Amino acid sequence: MNHESLFEQIVRKRSFLCVGLDSEIEKIPSFLLKKKDPVFEFNKRIIDSTHKYTVAYKPNVAFYECYGAKGWATLDATVSYIRENYPDIFVIADAKRGDIGNTSKMYAKAFFGNMPFDAITVAPYMGEDSVSPFLSYKDKWVVLLALTSNKGADDFQYHSDDGIRLFERVLSVSQKWGTINNIMYVVGATRADMLKDIRKLVPEHFLLVPGVGAQGGSLEEVAKYGMNNKCGLLVNSSRGIIFADSTENFDKVAGEKAKEVQLEMEKYLLERSLI
Amino acid sequence: MNHESLFEQIVRKRSFLCVGLDSEIEKIPSFLLKKKDPVFEFNKRIIDSTHKYTVAYKPNVAFYECYGAKGWATLDATVSYIRENYPDIFVIADAKRGDIGNTSKMYAKAFFGNMPFDAITVAPYMGEDSVSPFLSYKDKWVVLLALTSNKGADDFQYHSDDGIRLFERVLSVSQKWGTINNIMYVVGATRADMLKDIRKLVPEHFLLVPGVGAQGGSLEEVAKYGMNNKCGLLVNSSRGIIFADSTENFDKVAGEKAKEVQLEMEKYLLERSLI
Repeated sequence: MNHESLFEQIVRKRSFLCVGLDSEIEKIPSFLLKKKDPVFEFNKRIIDSTHKYTVAYKPNVAFYECYGAKGWATLDATVSYIRENYPDIFVIADAKRGDIGNTSKMYAKAFFGNMPFDAITVAPYMGEDSVSPFLSYKDKWVVLLALTSNKGADDFQYHSDDGIRLFERVLSVSQKWGTINNIMYVVGATRADMLKDIRKLVPEHFLLVPGVGAQGGSLEEVAKYGMNNKCGLLVNSSRGIIFADSTENFDKVAGEKAKEVQLEMEKYLLERSLI
Repeated sequence: MNHESLFEQIVRKRSFLCVGLDSEIEKIPSFLLKKKDPVFEFNKRIIDSTHKYTVAYKPNVAFYECYGAKGWATLDATVSYIRENYPDIFVIADAKRGDIGNTSKMYAKAFFGNMPFDAITVAPYMGEDSVSPFLSYKDKWVVLLALTSNKGADDFQYHSDDGIRLFERVLSVSQKWGTINNIMYVVGATRADMLKDIRKLVPEHFLLVPGVGAQGGSLEEVAKYGMNNKCGLLVNSSRGIIFADSTENFDKVAGEKAKEVQLEMEKYLLERSLI
């Protein structure tokens, strides 16, 4: 998938919603626990009920990895299910990987070679050769951490060299490693006002924005400061959608919550005359 | 394991060697491929032949993860094998994880709760709350990236605020998150001269030093600039030991190579009167 086809999907669905599959087994409806693979069953039903309002899914790899080999099988089954049933949807492995070249090559193989993810989140600390192995796969994306939504973002991301903060350096340096067709950036919604400055550095790139909803970010502000003429945003919501209800109707309620977000997104897309 | 018991093991074995289990299936002796789990068989024989000269093992998680659920089972079997047979040896998951608090908590569960690793490598970009969940496990360690051995280290790690470079800021800020008993730092051996400056910031912490051997670093220089009065070093070698031979004797040769490194290390420990 490239920049243009991602935008086309956004126009078609009138949505730039990414649903985060942070599917913690302790939080899924208890009646699912008797199933053979409760987390996969949960994901499947969430996906079936939200796909109309959603352009991307983002399984949070830690929530699968914490169950070892079994969790990896669930992750694989989930991404394969999306790929087979909803082939247009963009699927991001939220994995925050990154290591020296020959090791990142193996991580790329894990997520792009052996599993059909479209994208993976990558930490920038180790620089270009830790990122480029992911970019060598055709039509696959790196979602590079720039400014994150957590408190610890203050520890290093604002470290400033000659007025250039670290996250700004990440944005300007890493652009040269790929194109708008294979790099996007994580920018936390809890810092929506920063999006204005960020758009000066990366006017065209897609931004993946977590932190809307449970983490306190405002969708309106994200759209106001972050949207460009190809939308340029994927806004993630996890807990607010997938754990909105814990009864037998959890999937229906998740679908309703996703639709609510989609309708708000539609409004912002209309205001910008993008649809 | 704490700082003191790690030093005691170093004194006992007259070695500060960490053997990296970057056990790429394409590089292991081909006669092992007929085994049920060739990589585990390889690791088992490498471990049995090198444990006398080794204080730590460091499986590189990417090399297991790239085989999905099956690879995770091999990783689990490997760390369990070390734990059961050589309980004194320190085992590091080289995973370079790090995410917001509730996600890092899941990564900590994966490596410390479900698998018996002693330590995990963590990327510092997201700051304190991305690291602290790993530190909440008793007797478990974070090995935080400071200055890495790859070319891409130049992209961001030297970014300098008021004369303080990013890797220096990582060292000084993160010290406050834990103690010398649960935090150590990755410092690449290809930058051995930097160890002098680094020791001013972290005089007591253990440093995990990759990059000796295949990556070109000098053990002599690492010992000269990095050793403190409790040794304070774990020096990693992977390919130079585990892939030194590809015949039926690969394990014997790996043991000889490990012994060579141990003997050189013994020399530096004697020179410092640590043994």
